[in-house]
Amino acid sequence: MKTIRAAIVGYGNIGRFALEALLEAPDFQLAGIVRRSGADNLPEELKGYTVVKDIRDLSDVDVAILCTPSRSVESYAKEILPLGINTVDSFDIHTGIPALRQTLDKIAKAHGVKSVISAGWDPGSDSIVRALLQAIVPKGITYTNFGPGMSMGHTVAVKAIEGVKAALSMTIPVGTGIHRRMVYVEVKEGYDFKQIEQAIKTDPYFVHDETHVTQVDSVDALKDMGHGVNLTRKGVSGRTQNQLLEFDMKINNPALTGQILVCAARAAIRRTPGCYTMIELPVIDLLPGEPDEWIGKLV
Amino acid sequence: MKTIRAAIVGYGNIGRFALEALLEAPDFQLAGIVRRSGADNLPEELKGYTVVKDIRDLSDVDVAILCTPSRSVESYAKEILPLGINTVDSFDIHTGIPALRQTLDKIAKAHGVKSVISAGWDPGSDSIVRALLQAIVPKGITYTNFGPGMSMGHTVAVKAIEGVKAALSMTIPVGTGIHRRMVYVEVKEGYDFKQIEQAIKTDPYFVHDETHVTQVDSVDALKDMGHGVNLTRKGVSGRTQNQLLEFDMKINNPALTGQILVCAARAAIRRTPGCYTMIELPVIDLLPGEPDEWIGKLV
Repeated sequence: MKTIRAAIVGYGNIGRFALEALLEAPDFQLAGIVRRSGADNLPEELKGYTVVKDIRDLSDVDVAILCTPSRSVESYAKEILPLGINTVDSFDIHTGIPALRQTLDKIAKAHGVKSVISAGWDPGSDSIVRALLQAIVPKGITYTNFGPGMSMGHTVAVKAIEGVKAALSMTIPVGTGIHRRMVYVEVKEGYDFKQIEQAIKTDPYFVHDETHVTQVDSVDALKDMGHGVNLTRKGVSGRTQNQLLEFDMKINNPALTGQILVCAARAAIRRTPGCYTMIELPVIDLLPGEPDEWIGKLV
Repeated sequence: MKTIRAAIVGYGNIGRFALEALLEAPDFQLAGIVRRSGADNLPEELKGYTVVKDIRDLSDVDVAILCTPSRSVESYAKEILPLGINTVDSFDIHTGIPALRQTLDKIAKAHGVKSVISAGWDPGSDSIVRALLQAIVPKGITYTNFGPGMSMGHTVAVKAIEGVKAALSMTIPVGTGIHRRMVYVEVKEGYDFKQIEQAIKTDPYFVHDETHVTQVDSVDALKDMGHGVNLTRKGVSGRTQNQLLEFDMKINNPALTGQILVCAARAAIRRTPGCYTMIELPVIDLLPGEPDEWIGKLV
């Protein structure tokens, strides 16, 4: 049954967890891992696997699971799709999704392959829930509340401030889509914490949110990969008010993203050529095996 | 934009709410209502609409929304699909779904039309959530906890017991998919409540559940159409344990079903011929309007 040959492209946090999900999946086999440094300085867990610098050095790849940073997803997909290899990614810059979809749709169709983009948990599985809630309760407001968990974007913004040695920005949900930022910093010698605190609070990433900055000895000692989300919608079905719906997760962040990438790779294989977001895929296509069996179990 | 002409077939509780959802939908127009008694004894709210006994008396129907009892769904669909009219229903006998899908799939394909079955909230939107949770957390247990709300099946079973004048069976969730049954009965004159209580507790519908029976003066005074569900899954993504996911709703039961039927009717139009359950439809097809717009808003 292990018929889908997949390559992992990029071996950071997401790549490691995508590899685990792929190895656990009943219908996937690993074609190999693509990383910039190839087989140099190979981490212990990759020994025994095919590790290359260029995906062209792997044979019979059905689908490439792009585990690169969001900003380089487009260039990797543009390079890989014309090789006749399907791609999936977890591109997470929400405002850039429609444009990326249009760009890759043309390329995918031209080469008879499939691309599923933004297949993480938000965007991704949360998008499916948001679309479902919007459909079945057409009037009302959906709030997406993130956390508690680490925000990559906000953490990077803090690290860019002069005098910051290490940083962690935690996103804390306070309801109705509003978030508190809890920022932990290690300060470089010779810099003033109060000035750094002020710089963070006036940074565009933080200026609109309630932000608390704390100086710590070790940022590393505070880090965990747990994250969460709470989606709520209150609204109207037909003409009936007060329909209350809620979706809630507490999860290991890269582990869920890695798993969803593997699900999306499976779905990509089953589509006609083109580029898709998660809300354009039937959920049954995310599952291995035969539709009839799942229909009996899950419907 | 009101381009989809739909007929409501059956005008009970679900039919009334499906009509409201249809009238509120930006892309639907009402072709008419089909009821056994036709235009006789017309309820006040139907005056001004086309009401007929036979769907053949309506013109240009794209889709028939079957709001009949589950047991008569198959015969209605078998009659309507060959007319070149798509159908949707909220058939809710879980064990009968795979067979109904196979039967209607053949008929739909033979006549170049589409049928979406079991499009309520369970089966229906809950099925989508269950399938999503199964996909993104492949190992683990999903519990579906219903209620508090009225169980139609259990209520009908109580009504069939000799000496019962009126009945209501409420489903109360006690977690991990286990339910308590709270049964309220009006007793006919000359019958013994204790005997009725015993008959209920030994009935196949109740014998495996914790069941409490209470005699009341008026069952009608207790009825409300609120219902709820709580779906939980704890499991493994890839090799990472303890992924916690939960979906929760408190809703007006027939209003949500009526709305989902309208969403499914929209999705039916967009499919290729055949029969589908909700987990086989892309969620974006449940929404009106242009995909591109929703992708920008929801993904």
